[in-house]
Amino acid sequence: MQKFTYLILSVLLFTAQLSMGQTRKVIHIPDIPGYQTLKCDFHMHTVFSDGTVWPTVRVEEAWREGLDVISITDHIEYRPHSKDVVSDHNRSYEIASPLAEKLNLILVKGAEITRGMPPGHLNTLFIKNANLLERDDVFDALQEARDQGAFILWNHPGWKAQQPDTTLWWIEHTRLLNSDLLHGIEVYNYKSYYPEAIDWANDKNLTMFANTDIHPPIAMAYDVENSHRPLTLVFANSRTQKGVREALFNKRTVVYYNNTLMGQAALLEPLFFASLKIEKTPLELKNGEAKVIEIENTSDVDFELELVQPGIGFDAPARVTLEAHRVTPIELRGNSDQLSSMNKLEAYYQVNNMAVSSTENLVVTFSFANN
Amino acid sequence: MQKFTYLILSVLLFTAQLSMGQTRKVIHIPDIPGYQTLKCDFHMHTVFSDGTVWPTVRVEEAWREGLDVISITDHIEYRPHSKDVVSDHNRSYEIASPLAEKLNLILVKGAEITRGMPPGHLNTLFIKNANLLERDDVFDALQEARDQGAFILWNHPGWKAQQPDTTLWWIEHTRLLNSDLLHGIEVYNYKSYYPEAIDWANDKNLTMFANTDIHPPIAMAYDVENSHRPLTLVFANSRTQKGVREALFNKRTVVYYNNTLMGQAALLEPLFFASLKIEKTPLELKNGEAKVIEIENTSDVDFELELVQPGIGFDAPARVTLEAHRVTPIELRGNSDQLSSMNKLEAYYQVNNMAVSSTENLVVTFSFANN
Amino acid sequence: MQKFTYLILSVLLFTAQLSMGQTRKVIHIPDIPGYQTLKCDFHMHTVFSDGTVWPTVRVEEAWREGLDVISITDHIEYRPHSKDVVSDHNRSYEIASPLAEKLNLILVKGAEITRGMPPGHLNTLFIKNANLLERDDVFDALQEARDQGAFILWNHPGWKAQQPDTTLWWIEHTRLLNSDLLHGIEVYNYKSYYPEAIDWANDKNLTMFANTDIHPPIAMAYDVENSHRPLTLVFANSRTQKGVREALFNKRTVVYYNNTLMGQAALLEPLFFASLKIEKTPLELKNGEAKVIEIENTSDVDFELELVQPGIGFDAPARVTLEAHRVTPIELRGNSDQLSSMNKLEAYYQVNNMAVSSTENLVVTFSFANN
Amino acid sequence: MQKFTYLILSVLLFTAQLSMGQTRKVIHIPDIPGYQTLKCDFHMHTVFSDGTVWPTVRVEEAWREGLDVISITDHIEYRPHSKDVVSDHNRSYEIASPLAEKLNLILVKGAEITRGMPPGHLNTLFIKNANLLERDDVFDALQEARDQGAFILWNHPGWKAQQPDTTLWWIEHTRLLNSDLLHGIEVYNYKSYYPEAIDWANDKNLTMFANTDIHPPIAMAYDVENSHRPLTLVFANSRTQKGVREALFNKRTVVYYNNTLMGQAALLEPLFFASLKIEKTPLELKNGEAKVIEIENTSDVDFELELVQPGIGFDAPARVTLEAHRVTPIELRGNSDQLSSMNKLEAYYQVNNMAVSSTENLVVTFSFANN
Repeated sequence: MQKFTYLILSVLLFTAQLSMGQTRKVIHIPDIPGYQTLKCDFHMHTVFSDGTVWPTVRVEEAWREGLDVISITDHIEYRPHSKDVVSDHNRSYEIASPLAEKLNLILVKGAEITRGMPPGHLNTLFIKNANLLERDDVFDALQEARDQGAFILWNHPGWKAQQPDTTLWWIEHTRLLNSDLLHGIEVYNYKSYYPEAIDWANDKNLTMFANTDIHPPIAMAYDVENSHRPLTLVFANSRTQKGVREALFNKRTVVYYNNTLMGQAALLEPLFFASLKIEKTPLELKNGEAKVIEIENTSDVDFELELVQPGIGFDAPARVTLEAHRVTPIELRGNSDQLSSMNKLEAYYQVNNMAVSSTENLVVTFSFANN
Repeated sequence: MQKFTYLILSVLLFTAQLSMGQTRKVIHIPDIPGYQTLKCDFHMHTVFSDGTVWPTVRVEEAWREGLDVISITDHIEYRPHSKDVVSDHNRSYEIASPLAEKLNLILVKGAEITRGMPPGHLNTLFIKNANLLERDDVFDALQEARDQGAFILWNHPGWKAQQPDTTLWWIEHTRLLNSDLLHGIEVYNYKSYYPEAIDWANDKNLTMFANTDIHPPIAMAYDVENSHRPLTLVFANSRTQKGVREALFNKRTVVYYNNTLMGQAALLEPLFFASLKIEKTPLELKNGEAKVIEIENTSDVDFELELVQPGIGFDAPARVTLEAHRVTPIELRGNSDQLSSMNKLEAYYQVNNMAVSSTENLVVTFSFANN
Repeated sequence: MQKFTYLILSVLLFTAQLSMGQTRKVIHIPDIPGYQTLKCDFHMHTVFSDGTVWPTVRVEEAWREGLDVISITDHIEYRPHSKDVVSDHNRSYEIASPLAEKLNLILVKGAEITRGMPPGHLNTLFIKNANLLERDDVFDALQEARDQGAFILWNHPGWKAQQPDTTLWWIEHTRLLNSDLLHGIEVYNYKSYYPEAIDWANDKNLTMFANTDIHPPIAMAYDVENSHRPLTLVFANSRTQKGVREALFNKRTVVYYNNTLMGQAALLEPLFFASLKIEKTPLELKNGEAKVIEIENTSDVDFELELVQPGIGFDAPARVTLEAHRVTPIELRGNSDQLSSMNKLEAYYQVNNMAVSSTENLVVTFSFANN
Repeated sequence: MQKFTYLILSVLLFTAQLSMGQTRKVIHIPDIPGYQTLKCDFHMHTVFSDGTVWPTVRVEEAWREGLDVISITDHIEYRPHSKDVVSDHNRSYEIASPLAEKLNLILVKGAEITRGMPPGHLNTLFIKNANLLERDDVFDALQEARDQGAFILWNHPGWKAQQPDTTLWWIEHTRLLNSDLLHGIEVYNYKSYYPEAIDWANDKNLTMFANTDIHPPIAMAYDVENSHRPLTLVFANSRTQKGVREALFNKRTVVYYNNTLMGQAALLEPLFFASLKIEKTPLELKNGEAKVIEIENTSDVDFELELVQPGIGFDAPARVTLEAHRVTPIELRGNSDQLSSMNKLEAYYQVNNMAVSSTENLVVTFSFANN
């Protein structure tokens, strides 16, 4: 009967927690034409491998921070708590799943295949039974995942513990790629950026990821109150498991860490312009005069612009930062009499915190109505 | 020639200041159907009366903080710096005007008639020549302002220095009202709220104001970085002097200080709902079950809700705070079998930080799709 | 051999974590004459009962926040994760202990006896073997703890789940007290204050506690970055297990939550004055003149003062807040000719956020040198 | 009689302002053995030259921010507001002086000699009558200041408006130096650092300064709430005008801007160690073992350390940041059997944000007790 009392108390506690009115942050990264922009993290751990939190914590953390999608990817081959924490490889998903459903968070079933290099660590997403991935041969494990429908990505390819000196692409990775057992790669993991990975993603047609690989409570590793965890932005047809999976297999992702965005120009450019509100009133700029255009940035990102080519008929600032959630005035100064016959003025800027490869940034064209 | 050098240097300094890329805050208070919501402050001082800043400072402060409209209202009769600061009553407007134009800030020409009680201090807005307001008789001064087209408001009606014990409406104010020499009243001034004023505004058909009456640099009095100065929200047909004037004479204002909004229900209610994004998916709530609705508040205001009447067919939380820029989950719990036949569920909440009089708050009805 | 690789990697990760230079906050609450002021939390949970973190997390959280002493007090009788988390009642201490030693944090071995009311939940501190506390009869369990040398406190005495309407002291608690099985009581638990408890502590000679009873990661429940968790301040002869135990049995604690301190006047008063730096220069105040005294508050607490008796020969402010880590000017104004013969001026203030009982605050006397 | 009323009201307002309990920030930069560390700013403007605030604003800003000493240095030759603001060159000091006295802030009487390059702009401090500095020849003006007892410094020597391409020392500056008409130089002005200036200060025996040269309200230019304005730290025998003057003539200053300190090693080193609390307990480090030393930094500065030489008998971290107001653990790892006979361990670090010249940083030696 005592036991019954405890149960009651526990239920009361849980209800109390809900009624406290915990709220959810909003990550201000806009949708782009045709797609919803989902905020995702596909790599994290719990006490069921070498993490230090219960699986429900991963769901609540993600919900509070404004994420749409997570995957708990406990190691298959590495379980240092196994003396105390028993149960099989499906258990962390089972425990986390009801809370995810209640909070309308998409929980992708996953697991991390954990081997020495090559091929290193790989996450398998959208699997059905993690227990079947416990195989001697890594290729057998990955083939089993693939047979279950998995999307497979290579984690932290340049991890110092496994590739201390140089970040290499091994022959085994080519074999995985050719066998349809490798679809994505982490360009950013925890707090490290791997420049080789973005170029490999471009060259070999892999989907780019930024994941946390978080082991402790998230707030011990990132300042989630004032900033955000590393995120994979997924441009999906719908906010569903199916929508996420389709987008991953079709490479519609952008990497987002600190104040940096990386990905294909075809995704970064609409994301940039969807973040801005620009005055539409014609400038009527004249030679020798200056006019101010106000640009509001509604996103969480500070965009760092650098002029890459002089404007025709006017001078524009060489460097501008469009600060997040603020209005930045841009002063244009006419330097030609031909302005009176120009209907629009074009300014060409490079966005220094939006990268399309390890060496190139996005270039955008602002077109301002003039007359 | 030396003088010429100084001038050059000064111009260089000024240009430098612009190129530094100073940015402008955004005050997130939405427009409402039919009107733009302008953020305004109609009461402030400079060194030309008893303030301690140059007139351009008032313009730059307001622009940085995201205001649309200000009026510099230096005292006509009180100029303690007159030994050092000479020049006439139009001078502060003249000095501030070019910067306001450059920054696209609406600068309303104003002055403060400054007398003992009654009738106390009154601001005259949209005047043409402040020098003509220097008259022995206060009624003559106000009539002159009115002849220039002025909108006139009574400032800080309950100011302790003038009404230490009780806040009274004097016979002189009735005379002003009847003579079309009184159109508005400050419900909030600097850091003080005058509850009598909101009721007088309702009873006598006056426009409500919240103004700063700022004398020192604004950041010495308010935390403008993390919060906002007291503001008069004006619901205008256009972002122009004319639009502001029309809205003032037609009483379309809301008082906004700290986390409180005050005004007519007909303005507060659309402002409340324009601030929220509410999930539209039908709940399909069942007896004994609970469902969560997520409400995103896109405004800067934390709305403090209190249930005023039980829902029909369901239980809703007794108190909820919709925090600014966050998503708040509301849990509804079905308590009737009739839910299966209800197409919508209505929840009635009082908004404790939106007041329609000194004693009453706004009541709002949420209508959630059910089946 | 693969297993060996994993171990290596894990060690590398751990070392890396240390070299990252994680730092420790300082809680600015001063020592008092004769004692070190230790910051302590004697009530918390892990996955080994109904918490959601691994035991090492509790140590690292506490170290980061600047605590000196913690006790992990997993429930003996309530272990909802027992299907997945096996191992005995000593295990969470064993796991946490090496990290505590490395970080020089004092980890007190504890456990929570978890029963219905009466007598409710009780923490046993400084025990030796938690497994022996698993007894049918609660008195047997507590006697076993006592035989191991335990200090015993009653947790959350007014917990709504157990005492929904009134907070009562039961006959069982008198029996515990008389049997030397009850030494302390929580005046504050998690986010709740129990006013009855402070009065019982005073009347029945119990040690006062403020503890977190934390279940999730701490940052999910408190804003530890900008504020602090509820703390029991312990005034110890030495920063050792022995020093803490001696201080607890001798009731040298103060409760510290939010901006409030509670305890005996004999501890609060020296704590108050040890927090302040006050100018020593004689004021030489004269009748009709005003002088400013600057008081620096070096603690994290904002002290809220209210004058309780007029000064003799001078006027002092009726209310003053001595803000944390800032200098507050206090203006004294002479109102008597006798000032010229007064060597010191005394001002009597009540400290509204320092309580000595559920209804009384600490009163302090400032003595300023005058001539 | 009306006039009299205004006066009364004004006095009431002023009293009210005091009773509001405005507080003063504390800048945590410690005293060093033998000297008080005064926080000073010797360059600022008001409406009496080209600034935009009333002189009292400069006093109140400085008091709020925790400064000890300021000098208002309005331009002698450049007064763009002279059409509106009349009065002579001593007026801004006269207006500011009573408030400075009340608030116990040291106000040094100053003026800025404002000429083309060479010799550019020079501040004269501790003058008696600014009106006498209005002379055609700059040398006559400076000689007049010197005859009044002035300390003279060269302002913003590398100001782009005057030295756009290179920062040169002109023959005129040598003449000033040889004539005892040049005693100090700004190494930092507003937001610019002049590396040539620190080397000239070292070579030519000049006192180093960091000043704001502030024209608008201070909060428009610096984040004074979360950071600090550029400061000249003065190491004085007493907190008096005389103490400040003696220290300036004897070159006991350190430049402090953002997170950087610059000056002579003989001042920087005691400042560094006075900022730290280091555990004194002997480490008893052994070969192959690691021990953690905790260092508390009680100052506002984050010290960025870089190991410049391996320790003898132990490994120490290559880079460490001692964060302001936090405790940083330093892990030492024994690598020699000789540790058992070593009484102390010495670690040699360069402090990357403490500069002694344009190219060299301070090097410090930590000496830890071992056995």
